[in-house]
Amino acid sequence: MFQQLGLIGCGLMGGSFALALKRAGLVKRIVGYSKSPSTTERARQMGVIDVEAPSALLAVSGADIVLIAVPVASTEATFKSIKHLVTPGMLIMDVGSTKRDVIDAARRALREQVDCFVPAHPIAGKELSGVENADVDLYQGRQVVLTPIDRTNPVQLQQAVDVWSALGCRVVKMTPESHDAAFAAISHLPHLIAFALMNSISGQALGKDFLSLAGPGFRDFTRIAASEPALWRDVILSNREELLNQSRMFQRNLQSLELMITSGNSEALLEQIENASATRANWSMAKQQK
Amino acid sequence: MFQQLGLIGCGLMGGSFALALKRAGLVKRIVGYSKSPSTTERARQMGVIDVEAPSALLAVSGADIVLIAVPVASTEATFKSIKHLVTPGMLIMDVGSTKRDVIDAARRALREQVDCFVPAHPIAGKELSGVENADVDLYQGRQVVLTPIDRTNPVQLQQAVDVWSALGCRVVKMTPESHDAAFAAISHLPHLIAFALMNSISGQALGKDFLSLAGPGFRDFTRIAASEPALWRDVILSNREELLNQSRMFQRNLQSLELMITSGNSEALLEQIENASATRANWSMAKQQK
Repeated sequence: MFQQLGLIGCGLMGGSFALALKRAGLVKRIVGYSKSPSTTERARQMGVIDVEAPSALLAVSGADIVLIAVPVASTEATFKSIKHLVTPGMLIMDVGSTKRDVIDAARRALREQVDCFVPAHPIAGKELSGVENADVDLYQGRQVVLTPIDRTNPVQLQQAVDVWSALGCRVVKMTPESHDAAFAAISHLPHLIAFALMNSISGQALGKDFLSLAGPGFRDFTRIAASEPALWRDVILSNREELLNQSRMFQRNLQSLELMITSGNSEALLEQIENASATRANWSMAKQQK
Repeated sequence: MFQQLGLIGCGLMGGSFALALKRAGLVKRIVGYSKSPSTTERARQMGVIDVEAPSALLAVSGADIVLIAVPVASTEATFKSIKHLVTPGMLIMDVGSTKRDVIDAARRALREQVDCFVPAHPIAGKELSGVENADVDLYQGRQVVLTPIDRTNPVQLQQAVDVWSALGCRVVKMTPESHDAAFAAISHLPHLIAFALMNSISGQALGKDFLSLAGPGFRDFTRIAASEPALWRDVILSNREELLNQSRMFQRNLQSLELMITSGNSEALLEQIENASATRANWSMAKQQK
């Protein structure tokens, strides 16, 4: 049981965490801060937070648990703004979809107090963002990846496991490097590919005619291309190293298929497609998420 | 009104056409042939066809409308097997998802009688194939692309327009080249990419762990990777030229995004993502299909 949650960023992710923590009876009081005062006010009116803080620093003051739920590009600035009120027993977590850059930012800003920080990535979301869409059940039944480092205090790490488990999450621990490679492969690269494909088609003279013929397969394949541009620009840049690595591996696979097509190697092509099809069908059955 | 449909291939596409043609009162009798005798028998038992033909040639005998609904790789063999009973007034159509190769096959096999042939691609389908899944409403409200050539007889072309319109389709006419480029861009390349991505991930040491973290975005993006391998091997090979061309354009776009990432050109990257996102959002609103 925590006394006070300092919530920095009262949007979809942060707001939903606050609602769920309160419902689980895990916190007495929630002090919230958002960059936009109207968001903070709206969060208080909705009962997502109890008290509005005028700054990130003051949201942390007196907290024993802190959640940083801001865009990845703002994480370092947030660490810097709170560092003077971080205390040794405090549990600090984030919700960012990249981890190496967040950890680097935490090391630079928090220095020896980085041991309070447990990097977290709850795999949950909605098409609609903002505190208006905060949902007490957002994390229920989802996975959360924790990527502790050598310096991470085992006490805070265990608290983090307990908190997310209490919210109904399946907790997975990985190294930050494996996490970033995984999400480059299963999320960031698919987005990059979808962006590139849309631009490739729309850049052709008959692109509009082509698009008018596209059906359900194309609809599902390109759905992620309509994601929020600024958010994805930030995610892509913050995970650039692993993303470029995954993109290179993908292109090698694509070019190997192209070679089979060019040479008319029907058997090898079939084998590769069978492998892809079986992997996908198998994944579909084994998946853990809703 | 036609006297007799010769149906070659009594699967999902052919069976659904037969059911719809009969319901529309456009044909008196349906003679069907499938490579597998048990399929032909099943089609007759289900009332999809009236009479079982022992060969493709005999299915065409006495027909005034012929639909070839076989895998693209079997199209040329089918043309060859029926050519001796093709008569001048006959309307012959296919349902293949590539057109240049089908037209080449028709020219080679039918010679001067290629003028009876109206290349057709109804944009409809289901995850489940086979005559068991034949659906009288499969074509209702969908688009059908006709790709006539110089030699195509205007009488048969108009009949083809009338038939598909009567089945509730929106008829679009295109050159075979534009058709193949369009489907390379919006369908065949997305499949090839999805295959390559699945193989790229599953080929990595931690691939299984990565996949266990994948969520709804990945699910939709890779859904088409689970498509039927042999069918897609054939489609890919039959449209290889346009597909490789589209793949090259896509890779140029991807590599241009990579360059922006490498150089940290955040503004250009955002602009490209915004363009992709807007194109996709716009398409979603303008789409004609169910």
